[in-house]
Amino acid sequence: MAEVKSDIEIARAAKKKPILEIGAKLGIPSEHLLPYGHDKAKISAEFIAQQKDKKNGKLVLVTAINPTPAGEGKTTTTVGLGDGLNRIGKKAVICIREASLGPCFGVKGGAAGGGYAQVVPMEDMNLHFTGDFHAITSAHNLLAALIDNHIYWGNEQNIDIRRIAWRRVMDMNDRALREIVCSLGGVANGYPREAGFDITVASEVMAILCLSNDLKDLEKRLGNIIIGYRRDKTPVFARDIKADGAMTVLLKDAMQPNLVQTLEHNPAFVHGGPFANIAHGCNSVVATTTALKLGEYVVTEAGFGADLGAEKFFDIKCRKAGLSPDVAVIVATARAMKMNGGVKKEDLGKENIDAVKKGCANLGRHIQNVKKFGVPVVVGINHFYSDTDGEIQAIKDYVATLGAEAILCKHWAHGSAGIEDLARKVVELAESGQSQFAPLYPDEMPLFEKIETIAKSIYHAGEVIADKSVRDQLRSWEEQGYGNLPICMAKTQYSFSTDPNLRGAPSGHTVPVREVRLSAGAGFIVVITGEIMTMPGLPKVPSSEKIYLNEQGYIEGLF
Amino acid sequence: MAEVKSDIEIARAAKKKPILEIGAKLGIPSEHLLPYGHDKAKISAEFIAQQKDKKNGKLVLVTAINPTPAGEGKTTTTVGLGDGLNRIGKKAVICIREASLGPCFGVKGGAAGGGYAQVVPMEDMNLHFTGDFHAITSAHNLLAALIDNHIYWGNEQNIDIRRIAWRRVMDMNDRALREIVCSLGGVANGYPREAGFDITVASEVMAILCLSNDLKDLEKRLGNIIIGYRRDKTPVFARDIKADGAMTVLLKDAMQPNLVQTLEHNPAFVHGGPFANIAHGCNSVVATTTALKLGEYVVTEAGFGADLGAEKFFDIKCRKAGLSPDVAVIVATARAMKMNGGVKKEDLGKENIDAVKKGCANLGRHIQNVKKFGVPVVVGINHFYSDTDGEIQAIKDYVATLGAEAILCKHWAHGSAGIEDLARKVVELAESGQSQFAPLYPDEMPLFEKIETIAKSIYHAGEVIADKSVRDQLRSWEEQGYGNLPICMAKTQYSFSTDPNLRGAPSGHTVPVREVRLSAGAGFIVVITGEIMTMPGLPKVPSSEKIYLNEQGYIEGLF
Repeated sequence: MAEVKSDIEIARAAKKKPILEIGAKLGIPSEHLLPYGHDKAKISAEFIAQQKDKKNGKLVLVTAINPTPAGEGKTTTTVGLGDGLNRIGKKAVICIREASLGPCFGVKGGAAGGGYAQVVPMEDMNLHFTGDFHAITSAHNLLAALIDNHIYWGNEQNIDIRRIAWRRVMDMNDRALREIVCSLGGVANGYPREAGFDITVASEVMAILCLSNDLKDLEKRLGNIIIGYRRDKTPVFARDIKADGAMTVLLKDAMQPNLVQTLEHNPAFVHGGPFANIAHGCNSVVATTTALKLGEYVVTEAGFGADLGAEKFFDIKCRKAGLSPDVAVIVATARAMKMNGGVKKEDLGKENIDAVKKGCANLGRHIQNVKKFGVPVVVGINHFYSDTDGEIQAIKDYVATLGAEAILCKHWAHGSAGIEDLARKVVELAESGQSQFAPLYPDEMPLFEKIETIAKSIYHAGEVIADKSVRDQLRSWEEQGYGNLPICMAKTQYSFSTDPNLRGAPSGHTVPVREVRLSAGAGFIVVITGEIMTMPGLPKVPSSEKIYLNEQGYIEGLF
Repeated sequence: MAEVKSDIEIARAAKKKPILEIGAKLGIPSEHLLPYGHDKAKISAEFIAQQKDKKNGKLVLVTAINPTPAGEGKTTTTVGLGDGLNRIGKKAVICIREASLGPCFGVKGGAAGGGYAQVVPMEDMNLHFTGDFHAITSAHNLLAALIDNHIYWGNEQNIDIRRIAWRRVMDMNDRALREIVCSLGGVANGYPREAGFDITVASEVMAILCLSNDLKDLEKRLGNIIIGYRRDKTPVFARDIKADGAMTVLLKDAMQPNLVQTLEHNPAFVHGGPFANIAHGCNSVVATTTALKLGEYVVTEAGFGADLGAEKFFDIKCRKAGLSPDVAVIVATARAMKMNGGVKKEDLGKENIDAVKKGCANLGRHIQNVKKFGVPVVVGINHFYSDTDGEIQAIKDYVATLGAEAILCKHWAHGSAGIEDLARKVVELAESGQSQFAPLYPDEMPLFEKIETIAKSIYHAGEVIADKSVRDQLRSWEEQGYGNLPICMAKTQYSFSTDPNLRGAPSGHTVPVREVRLSAGAGFIVVITGEIMTMPGLPKVPSSEKIYLNEQGYIEGLF
């Protein structure tokens, strides 16, 4: 295995095609592609508007089992499947999220896919890319500055400074900013109060941008943001302090999807990146709906495992954007099955068919869950060198008992050639027309019942518990007209339960709701069931210490 | 005058040429132009390195009288003169600074020039442009996060948390962030301490980027930043916590100059934008030195009036980058002369030749000052509709008594056709070879003497006063090896003195030095002589309230 190249070596050796050529494949004329360098471009809002009446392609969701330290390769499979579909003659477009800058300086950066299933230019995608996250940071912090400025100049709206609900954001892992006191230093600096920063991907502006249909919708949603409450507890909106127009102007370019390419020169839209816990964790609606107009197939992914990611993709994104997925791929690995079956990370290299069989319970639960949304499922086994034939066969046999198929995929090592079988199966399922997609619960269901429905149906929990204050808060939002919003669960991604150590497929557990938050602009109710970190810290030896430009001008240490 | 179009109307009506075409005029091949949309591009570091051995063109500095509320039009004249030189057959390149985002939401935005002497696309230039300032913000705040992280994990360098010298930055007018207490909330969030934010243009990283010759030099300077002091008062550098490599990676693209165009399709480099008080206030060295390789003439400007801007351009930028300016244009207006002569703003519309004559003392002082650097001077009178022939003649007559020439320029109304005379005079002076440029003081002069030299020679002050602590600090830096650095004066831009209300040409005043700061990365000593605001606030009715996207997708209210 000495000849195995690293992701970054493969990416650097790639011969990229000019991005205008990639766009031309999709029928985008060069005047509607706004280049950022020669390998990235934004698609003009005008061109997007012109596609409105075209027929949609097929929508494929790539989701996964609960993540384990063994890795499952969801993005890699998304990219590989996109290449695979193109290989078998389908015009396919990949839709994935943008990476956050801050965490890259903590632990080694994310990259976009891996092996021979990557999107390039990976350095740019892990750094500033086309500036979308910077624009979101600016728009978010403009609103924050306008709030304190409004109070400073007389507080006409009577905002209760103890009840300001809008923090600031930075695309950086900086624990020192989690909790601060601002406006110190005397009269000229305002009224001292408690405040704090979240990381940019946790911004409601990020969620809003990713759920908006167009700039008009974006402006309306920005205006709907609740920035705080008055002494009488009535909400104050961003539009009450006239912040929505300027925020929209700051986000004008960021609303346009970014086009890049895979190593095999197939188009990939990389746009938006909301948190998958306090937000819905999918790429932008604009990117997905545009891709559906331009491609026969769109392959997209959702955050974390299917219990969080796919559920939110279906119940929030698809519901709100009117999308109807045709097929779902659940990514699993033999290694992850072994971990779910109780094997420790250091023992993953050894064959253990019994552990694989035991761990398959986790995969099985996800298969059954996704079927509850009426979407046909296929399992993609992302191959690792250490996998044995017996382990792979055990997964295939198990999945067959659930009336589905598991297909071995070698896209990491062989690109599209390694994933043809999965691509063919996806086409077969999509073209069978068997998808009967419907969200899990109706809009009009009371909010607490929606939470119970998700917990019982998807997590297999026995009950949902919540303090009276939480239930009162939900009822009060229902009275204010927010009862029709979907639920955005914030739960550990490592388990179906709220205990991150409980692997496999636990049942009958209790889901305690600690807190609920209204994202009135994004249009969902966040339900928090554990510690949710919205501003990460850096480790003792941050990866930034090893990041530098080498003599050739290449970035070292980022991957 | 009903038919006079606004700047934004003129800019929107402009037919821009593709930026690759503008670059081709300068001999930049398309693979070395990294486009940002179709009207902006960065020039590759590789191409820049290839120009090293080419001959330099002529360097023209545009500076001005002390600014007054009447406006003087320095950038407009810089742009107009660039167009004018091209019109008379010289290949000229314009070099100006980038605009800061934050202040645009406070009062109406800056734009780049005015009338028919503008650089486009002005909307982008006043918003995110090519993301340089966002990259500077990220690099600055990464260092800040690494400092608190270093302390959190054991503080190996023994940084005294009371003596941290590195604040955070944001490109926003946000007074609430001027003084904060950070790291509140318990053990997981670190050690509470006083901290604060400046606006991005005040970042030392901005000054460093603008003074660096290349990425290697940039990395070295970033490493030299003093982030704080130990209990024994020895400095701790950014390189001590291994921050310089990752910061350089974040600034890789931001180091490359941005190419845009004037309304007349002539090339303009818009790159960097350091404060003109606590920093040196010029566009980047990389942009200027590259432009000198590509053009026969380079027209650049310096911040504020000549007492601050030109002095720093000569003593900091030219000294450090080895530049030798060939001619300086001092921009004046009849209106500003009247204000210097005691006329109130509301009376500027009335002819007042006596006031013009009286106010010319301010202009005269700047002419004499610039000549002290050995650079020939011509005065450009930026024409306003309300100017009378008598007022213009009074300025011309006055300037003639000083052995220089004042030329009326109508570029605002007529573009390059209105500024041919000035362009011809600039060529005559530049080609005469009479420039004998030399900085005002030698590197080896003691620091306090450098301050006295600037104050007495340029400001015509009687004396410089400073507390013992300030003098001790300067001596201590001399002992540490910083004695050879140039001085960066932070003084009001409205007067030769430290009193902003003292117009004209005061003499014999006292310059009190309140504080000195070492910018060890940028390579200068900041000398503060008054209140310097490094984080602006927003006004009672911020302009953001009127900024929005109109139905055609155009930005309203920004200009």
